Amino acid sequence: MTDFAQIDTYLEANLNQSLEELRRLVAQPSVAAQNLGLQACAELVAEMLHKRGFSVQILPTGGAPVVFAERKGRSDKTLLFYNHYDVQPAEPLELWESPPFQPEIRDGKMYGRGISDDKSHITSRLFAIDALLAEDGELPCNVKFVIEGEEEISSVHLPQFVHSHKELLAADACVWEFGSVDHRDVPMQYLGLRGICYVELSVETASIDVHSGIGGSIFPNAAWRLVWALNSLKGPDERIRIPGYYDDVLPPSERDKALMAALPEVSEEYRTRYGVQQFLHGLDGGVELRIAEAFQPTCTICGLTSGYQGKGSKTVLPARASAKVDFRLVPNQTPEKVLKALRAHLDAQGFADVRVDYLGGEAPARTDPDDPFVELVVRTAQPVYGVPMQIVPMIGGSGPNHVFTETLGIPIVTAGVGYPGSQAHAPNENLRIDLYLKGARHIARILSAFAEAS
Amino acid sequence: MTDFAQIDTYLEANLNQSLEELRRLVAQPSVAAQNLGLQACAELVAEMLHKRGFSVQILPTGGAPVVFAERKGRSDKTLLFYNHYDVQPAEPLELWESPPFQPEIRDGKMYGRGISDDKSHITSRLFAIDALLAEDGELPCNVKFVIEGEEEISSVHLPQFVHSHKELLAADACVWEFGSVDHRDVPMQYLGLRGICYVELSVETASIDVHSGIGGSIFPNAAWRLVWALNSLKGPDERIRIPGYYDDVLPPSERDKALMAALPEVSEEYRTRYGVQQFLHGLDGGVELRIAEAFQPTCTICGLTSGYQGKGSKTVLPARASAKVDFRLVPNQTPEKVLKALRAHLDAQGFADVRVDYLGGEAPARTDPDDPFVELVVRTAQPVYGVPMQIVPMIGGSGPNHVFTETLGIPIVTAGVGYPGSQAHAPNENLRIDLYLKGARHIARILSAFAEAS
Repeated sequence: MTDFAQIDTYLEANLNQSLEELRRLVAQPSVAAQNLGLQACAELVAEMLHKRGFSVQILPTGGAPVVFAERKGRSDKTLLFYNHYDVQPAEPLELWESPPFQPEIRDGKMYGRGISDDKSHITSRLFAIDALLAEDGELPCNVKFVIEGEEEISSVHLPQFVHSHKELLAADACVWEFGSVDHRDVPMQYLGLRGICYVELSVETASIDVHSGIGGSIFPNAAWRLVWALNSLKGPDERIRIPGYYDDVLPPSERDKALMAALPEVSEEYRTRYGVQQFLHGLDGGVELRIAEAFQPTCTICGLTSGYQGKGSKTVLPARASAKVDFRLVPNQTPEKVLKALRAHLDAQGFADVRVDYLGGEAPARTDPDDPFVELVVRTAQPVYGVPMQIVPMIGGSGPNHVFTETLGIPIVTAGVGYPGSQAHAPNENLRIDLYLKGARHIARILSAFAEAS
Repeated sequence: MTDFAQIDTYLEANLNQSLEELRRLVAQPSVAAQNLGLQACAELVAEMLHKRGFSVQILPTGGAPVVFAERKGRSDKTLLFYNHYDVQPAEPLELWESPPFQPEIRDGKMYGRGISDDKSHITSRLFAIDALLAEDGELPCNVKFVIEGEEEISSVHLPQFVHSHKELLAADACVWEFGSVDHRDVPMQYLGLRGICYVELSVETASIDVHSGIGGSIFPNAAWRLVWALNSLKGPDERIRIPGYYDDVLPPSERDKALMAALPEVSEEYRTRYGVQQFLHGLDGGVELRIAEAFQPTCTICGLTSGYQGKGSKTVLPARASAKVDFRLVPNQTPEKVLKALRAHLDAQGFADVRVDYLGGEAPARTDPDDPFVELVVRTAQPVYGVPMQIVPMIGGSGPNHVFTETLGIPIVTAGVGYPGSQAHAPNENLRIDLYLKGARHIARILSAFAEAS
């Protein structure tokens, strides 16, 4: 039996050293969308794993490389950690209180782009492994890491990679890249992710921008074409107008609804955190808001760009316009089907001139809330957090969990160091250092209990 | 009688010197939309006028100053030149073949931001004055210049300025800031300008951008609100949906239609120059296309901005979105009425959350094609261009001509150095040097004939 008092003492004594390692990792920019620093970051992660006695490979994918690492343990069971070393773009830079790639500690939090999503998750797992090795000299079970560099751009090359490395990645269960407490500081067990289909719509109506006094009445305007094409996708009633879009949607089960009903209210927190005055669909809060957040498919404009965007006025008719759009998908929708339906819809609506570029996608996927590994992870959280971990059957975010559930056929759990104020994907992304320590304590317990489970 | 052979000899001999003066003027950035270099440019223009013996004043307006200059002549008649020293923004900078504020001569053309619109017009008038002074030692008539610095941002302060300087500006006729040959090199007499109402529409739905996995189903999205609000203004049928928008529209008269019918075909030129594949309203060319260009009111999106606009994908739900929109107005529409109708329409359509900022506007205005001053200007063009000047009763662009027609009650003509390839408001704006010389020759003849006219 592992002595968790010893483990916890080790973690407390070595916290600053682990944070120093995290600082080094965040200071290495690795923005997948901008192809910035990815190889260097992969090498840094590989070095960190190698230092712990893992055998490490940096494997090509066609895009950013995957870092794969493996170390044998006492038990013959294998736990797989999926993480990613890439981060979201840091823009808009002017809203950061400290530079995004120069991590800084203020008031018990550490700030930097990618610190929560996903770099502190990587180092907190390594920190737990350090503690187990210090205590026992070996790991309780086999441990594998697969750390990709394209999660923030929809894991473009991961499905093919997992398919062609099925043997290498074989495991009995998987711990996902994120995990967090909610606004009450209760640890949450997230068991399903929506899928995503991310596209760029673009229109070109002329070879150059035109003086609006000349073209205004008689030339097609790329910005107007884009507006009308977007309007054909979704109206103010929020109903997505692409024929067949809702056909494959599987509504939440009674078990899902019961689990969702047990979760705490989020409406006040959302109002405060995001400055949102009211929610869509006339929702005011309650289980209906939580179910809508996770179990409804979406069509979100993520960005618009056309013509003059500077100060004041410029009388110009834009030759080009484009929009970034993401569709969040629920079981059993697929990005392939949505992409095809989108193209057909635009053509049918008279928008054959609107080009669709597929920037990436993932299918939705879930793990059974009654899987024994889920029970183990929930149970081992209790001594760390002092409260029971609560099960969330589905959340609104996306990730390549479907690749692992489909290809490796294993349950996936979440256990991590995030919290609702992490500002993931936004300026001033941060990590609560107290949760970093708890996350490492929980991972050490999971590894130990997993080795002993029948 | 002025000896025009002498005048033309002078102009040919001193062309390079005048171009050098133009180079200096273009090298001084003066972007009204960005409040860049305006005072310095006003001072430079004032210096150029002072050198010619004009009494010059730099007068405050509440915005960029107006340069006013006056010099007495032999006749007691007074000709007023209206020009502007401000220019459009130079962006997108990467499309310029030479830096926009470092004028460069290539293949008989001189390139730079504002060189055609409107700086070469200023110096070509000064060049004509130099020639008349060299020939006669005095000017044939009184000459006044009013040169403003906000034409490219809808002449925000000019109406008030003209109203309160009515005596100072009093004149018998006015030569407008632009003028050009068409694609056949035939000089054109433009007698009417559409009005404009330029607004920025903006929406804010949250205090910060939100991860689209969280907000996608349940948070309002600023970009979607903007798209729907814009869509409510105009549909793919190009009909503007603001109630009452077309009520005040005065259709072209039979005389207007006859003048428009006499003009050359423009469709092929537009296709080639702007890379436009087809025109709106099913138009293919002919007088219908020309009438639509000038006599129809518009609603043009000049720019769109929201959320992530960088490379690749970012899964973000934008907190803010905005659009620049211009409405081109025809007699008897007014910007005030359109602005009011726009706000009422957005409110009625459920878009009270869409803010409207008025960035400037002008009323439409016209000069009678049968005015004797128009006849004089048309007649004096013939010896310079070798072909008769052709009358265009109305064009699609806008300007503050209404201020002068309404307040000073004088006819306004165009005589200038532009051509269809000037790239005004676009990258690689340029001046044809042969037309610069012709423009100066024409202005010298106008001044001389005007002094002698009864």
